[in-house]
Amino acid sequence: MEINLKLDRKMRIIGTSELGHNTIFDTHPSAGGEDTAPTPMEILLQAMAACSFMDVVSIIRKKRKEVINLEVKAVAVRATEHPKVLTEVHLTFVLTSPDAEQSELDRAVELSQKTYCGASAMFQRSGCKVTWETVIKRP
Amino acid sequence: MEINLKLDRKMRIIGTSELGHNTIFDTHPSAGGEDTAPTPMEILLQAMAACSFMDVVSIIRKKRKEVINLEVKAVAVRATEHPKVLTEVHLTFVLTSPDAEQSELDRAVELSQKTYCGASAMFQRSGCKVTWETVIKRP
Repeated sequence: MEINLKLDRKMRIIGTSELGHNTIFDTHPSAGGEDTAPTPMEILLQAMAACSFMDVVSIIRKKRKEVINLEVKAVAVRATEHPKVLTEVHLTFVLTSPDAEQSELDRAVELSQKTYCGASAMFQRSGCKVTWETVIKRP
Repeated sequence: MEINLKLDRKMRIIGTSELGHNTIFDTHPSAGGEDTAPTPMEILLQAMAACSFMDVVSIIRKKRKEVINLEVKAVAVRATEHPKVLTEVHLTFVLTSPDAEQSELDRAVELSQKTYCGASAMFQRSGCKVTWETVIKRP
């Protein structure tokens, strides 16, 4: 896997993937940025949650249950001293589905967090405490 | 820190930061996606590189040296078995500056990778081997 980053202006960065898709990073004015895009640590957290998100959608669909929507909220605690790692992450998975059972969502998240999700495995191995909860909504 | 993700279509995800900025994730057709955006693991790698990128720009500017551009390439090796963590990352920092010295760039990257960058610290603590090289270009 190869990615590239270049400076756009001030602290704003344009990231490019192998297929040429862009992701924009910025930071707060207190750190020299202009707040035009999420910060690297916000996007790191999003990427971990997105990795698990895709696992869960995939597992629910493989059970032939309908995914009308999935929403994932991630709340993280960050160390106050350098390096300011994420020390705790709590994920809330809210699945809107007419037919998926609570137990199926629970199992999908567990499989992702304990077996499949490479990003969450990296967070957990780094010492970050990752916890989660699940909610089913009927449309 | 809090972020939110929601399903856009198929496997495409819209991530939203606290300030309301969006980041888009997608995946390959083989995984049910449409390749319209980078994958979560590509963005995870970009976020780590972007975190260190900002440290380096900040440190060089604090030395009152000019940053005309910084480009960072990250090449990663991923585990072949689940969870498919990143096991090795090599970063190449190419600084275009009329006055920064090679030793200043080297020191800035070292400070970021060993002291400041929370994302790189998480990668390293997870067991990922992070290495780097630096290049100065004169404009």
